[in-house]
Amino acid sequence: MTSQRDGLDRFYSVIPAGGIGSRLWPLSRADAPKFLHDLTGSGSTLLRATWDRLAPLSGEQRIMVVTGRAHRAAVEGQLPSLADPNVVLESEPKESSAAIGLAAAILERREPGVIVGSFAADHVINDQNAFRRAVVAAVAAADAGYIATIGITPTEPAIGFGYIRCGEQLDIDGAPTAVRADSFVEKPDLETARHYLDDGNYLWNGGMFISRADVLLAQLGESEPALLAGLSELADAWDTPRRGAVVDRVWPTLKKIAIDYSVAEPAAKAGRLAVIPGDFDWDDVGDFAAIAKLHSAGGPSNLAILGENARVLADSSSGIVVSQTGRLISLIGVSDIVVVDTPDALLVTTSANAQRVKAVVDALKLSGSNDVL
Amino acid sequence: MTSQRDGLDRFYSVIPAGGIGSRLWPLSRADAPKFLHDLTGSGSTLLRATWDRLAPLSGEQRIMVVTGRAHRAAVEGQLPSLADPNVVLESEPKESSAAIGLAAAILERREPGVIVGSFAADHVINDQNAFRRAVVAAVAAADAGYIATIGITPTEPAIGFGYIRCGEQLDIDGAPTAVRADSFVEKPDLETARHYLDDGNYLWNGGMFISRADVLLAQLGESEPALLAGLSELADAWDTPRRGAVVDRVWPTLKKIAIDYSVAEPAAKAGRLAVIPGDFDWDDVGDFAAIAKLHSAGGPSNLAILGENARVLADSSSGIVVSQTGRLISLIGVSDIVVVDTPDALLVTTSANAQRVKAVVDALKLSGSNDVL
Repeated sequence: MTSQRDGLDRFYSVIPAGGIGSRLWPLSRADAPKFLHDLTGSGSTLLRATWDRLAPLSGEQRIMVVTGRAHRAAVEGQLPSLADPNVVLESEPKESSAAIGLAAAILERREPGVIVGSFAADHVINDQNAFRRAVVAAVAAADAGYIATIGITPTEPAIGFGYIRCGEQLDIDGAPTAVRADSFVEKPDLETARHYLDDGNYLWNGGMFISRADVLLAQLGESEPALLAGLSELADAWDTPRRGAVVDRVWPTLKKIAIDYSVAEPAAKAGRLAVIPGDFDWDDVGDFAAIAKLHSAGGPSNLAILGENARVLADSSSGIVVSQTGRLISLIGVSDIVVVDTPDALLVTTSANAQRVKAVVDALKLSGSNDVL
Repeated sequence: MTSQRDGLDRFYSVIPAGGIGSRLWPLSRADAPKFLHDLTGSGSTLLRATWDRLAPLSGEQRIMVVTGRAHRAAVEGQLPSLADPNVVLESEPKESSAAIGLAAAILERREPGVIVGSFAADHVINDQNAFRRAVVAAVAAADAGYIATIGITPTEPAIGFGYIRCGEQLDIDGAPTAVRADSFVEKPDLETARHYLDDGNYLWNGGMFISRADVLLAQLGESEPALLAGLSELADAWDTPRRGAVVDRVWPTLKKIAIDYSVAEPAAKAGRLAVIPGDFDWDDVGDFAAIAKLHSAGGPSNLAILGENARVLADSSSGIVVSQTGRLISLIGVSDIVVVDTPDALLVTTSANAQRVKAVVDALKLSGSNDVL
């Protein structure tokens, strides 16, 4: 077994930057997905904040970003230190198994024994020190041969997240809090979520996976051999002149499947998944209610306002206003309201209905209203 | 006493077109007041609909419009048959006593014995026949020397209107339903409004006043002699080359007072005010809740949509959307909502808060945000 430092030396960060974030329409769009927005009011986009969180761990030269071709310019504009060989462009979205698996396969060929950690481009974490401690422990677990994940200690019976049921304590050098993952469970209803919270043995699935690249790929190959074969072919050609031709031929054939299903759940069933409890704030800011909550926690006002040129006049109202226009927005006596004002589309809903925004996007797709998607 | 026909022959309609309609901000503005909007979806503006209601009674050549200088072009554009001498322009708003009093004074000089009827430019009445019957009766009462008003039979305990308490039956040729007005009462609270409705002796004050011009002016002179003197000076000069100079000197000095206070209430106290019960629909569409109600009564949908190019996607929502932009407006799960989308200002409130819109306009004035007023 190598030392903790050795593991970190071989650590590479991977940021899959793919999802549009349909529940954040009309702010998030096909051409301006969630990760390109500053949803916290920090002045940084979610992507940039993710980069800044990872750079101290792996170094800027050891961060790979997997994103769509259409977002290349925006991504490189926000991450000027992103090394050219570390930009992996998808010709079409194929979900997280393909994105993370390809990154792992490319990096394993460049640097056998590499440890990869994948971190979504559009999550929010404020406690940087606690995050780093958890990643360092996860790298130690990965170095010990586990597929590691960081499970977030729940602070409320959230129904918008998946959960991990924790099992026995593991004995891993450098990861004293690591436990074995018993199973992954889907987003629960409120009653079940309350039971999970009371039980104390459940953590939120933060979607962060850290493991040796070869271990990750082997696990993927067990459940999805065809996908692994495709990714291997791509990785073999990646750093050669054949890349373009192979991408054109192979990428469209890849199966769309989330890495939770192709890797994490099978690994948990096989007892190979280690969970590092992460005792820090975390949110996937999945809808406008989540953004409103992020902001209301930070200040005394109960009306969150996002937007550089926001001009809001509110009289006894609460909720969130997102302003992308210079228009005056006046709210009178509306509670838990969500108002998203963009140049070509306006959304008015409530926090309680925030999850239903995706249904509107689906309806717009069906009606052919692609101009506002 | 002259015959009913004789009275109508001497009838002249006056339309004071002055109020901005602050409770309908940001739809109604200083440069686009309420009366210039089509709030009913009929295809006619409120001003044009008022004209069309009065033309069969007085004839198009006998309708005078009193409006602000800034609105001359819009008013003349909507009323192409409006005779040039019948356009009375205010250099600044001075409320209804000055507007209606000046019209009466000008017309009395042009045509002694004229009967004037003043009708707000921004009210909604659908039952044209019942309206005409009431006006014909009011003209008969005016011809008999009364100041007449049309009181609307209440259909609900409205708190947004003033009420008229009715007294004894009058015996007027051509106005068999006329009663004496006992008193005018201000907008009541809900409990009082319910009492009025149950009592059966109260009518809504529709703000329509019909009387001989000389009678109206004499009544005005009793309560506001200085105002009458100013109006007389203006009227004496009106159809002469001195008009401009006299307007510049006198108009700014006129007292601002509603005709309800200067004429109607004193006339009621003196027993000179006749009320014709008007058994027709009537609304002053004072706020967005009123507009929503107008529309919901007309169709099965509980979401009223105003705006020629409105593009609304609504999922289990009710209330009203006013769209002045081509933007897509999406509503999800909001009840009794009011959304008014204009190029430079957006309002989001609820029907229950519709009356509070005026407070926002006041706040905007105080903060110097004149660009959106």
